[in-house]
Amino acid sequence: MSLAEQVLDAARAQGIMIATAESCTGGMVAAALTDIAGSSDVLERGFVTYSNQAKIDMLGVSLGTLEAHGAVSEPVAIEMSEGAVKNAAADLAVSITGIAGPGGSEHKPEGRVCFAVAMSGRATHVETVEFGAQGRAKVRAAARDHALRLLYQALS
Amino acid sequence: MSLAEQVLDAARAQGIMIATAESCTGGMVAAALTDIAGSSDVLERGFVTYSNQAKIDMLGVSLGTLEAHGAVSEPVAIEMSEGAVKNAAADLAVSITGIAGPGGSEHKPEGRVCFAVAMSGRATHVETVEFGAQGRAKVRAAARDHALRLLYQALS
Repeated sequence: MSLAEQVLDAARAQGIMIATAESCTGGMVAAALTDIAGSSDVLERGFVTYSNQAKIDMLGVSLGTLEAHGAVSEPVAIEMSEGAVKNAAADLAVSITGIAGPGGSEHKPEGRVCFAVAMSGRATHVETVEFGAQGRAKVRAAARDHALRLLYQALS
Repeated sequence: MSLAEQVLDAARAQGIMIATAESCTGGMVAAALTDIAGSSDVLERGFVTYSNQAKIDMLGVSLGTLEAHGAVSEPVAIEMSEGAVKNAAADLAVSITGIAGPGGSEHKPEGRVCFAVAMSGRATHVETVEFGAQGRAKVRAAARDHALRLLYQALS
């Protein structure tokens, strides 16, 4: 069973709806979940907040947090995931913001990705993974899979 | 050059920002565009409006249109694409709403996908493609590629 199927089954069993808030993965997490038939029971919506303005408008990320920490930061990841739960009809959301490359930005290294998982009634979990300069496609795929694992852990 | 690269190059040359409004493709069009380095110049944001409530909240689709025509319909596709241009900082948006399967729904056949392309200052283009019951993965991939072609045509 794929990771996406495991996430959907675990969420469905608990009646939990999921939202995604993606920057560097650009929709890949939502796409992986919706690859599975019946995913509409679980995936409520996805936010692909590629620009900073989208992070502000769609998820309520504050301009102050973006300016102080940059888009690829744990504080922004936290605000993205919490904004997704708040703005969707969802109980659980994962956020992904990172530097897929090529090249670093904001004085941060290529391959750095910040993730957060927000869930109603629980403290938000946040973490940063350094995937390294393995190339855009590999960083994005690894970030997608990591986000799915974090959703599964939150449901376990 | 991939279809996504052609879309990005054509949009970049004209200073046009793009948004996506996806239902059955669930983020695949945004993911294809963001596969390409430098796509942040062009992709402003993506809306993965899997539920009807998401179509209403994020894109301003009317409940009346959803009830009268169903989610997989040209009127809903039009409202999705126009809502994406309106609600994003974008000039051009494509919407995709269809029945990826397995099985039909709303008395509509598996493989039916409605697309619309909205662009500032132009009439919205809408069309329906019957991809047939070729399986969920193939219908979704074909719909993603068709949406990219429609974006490219709008830019040509």
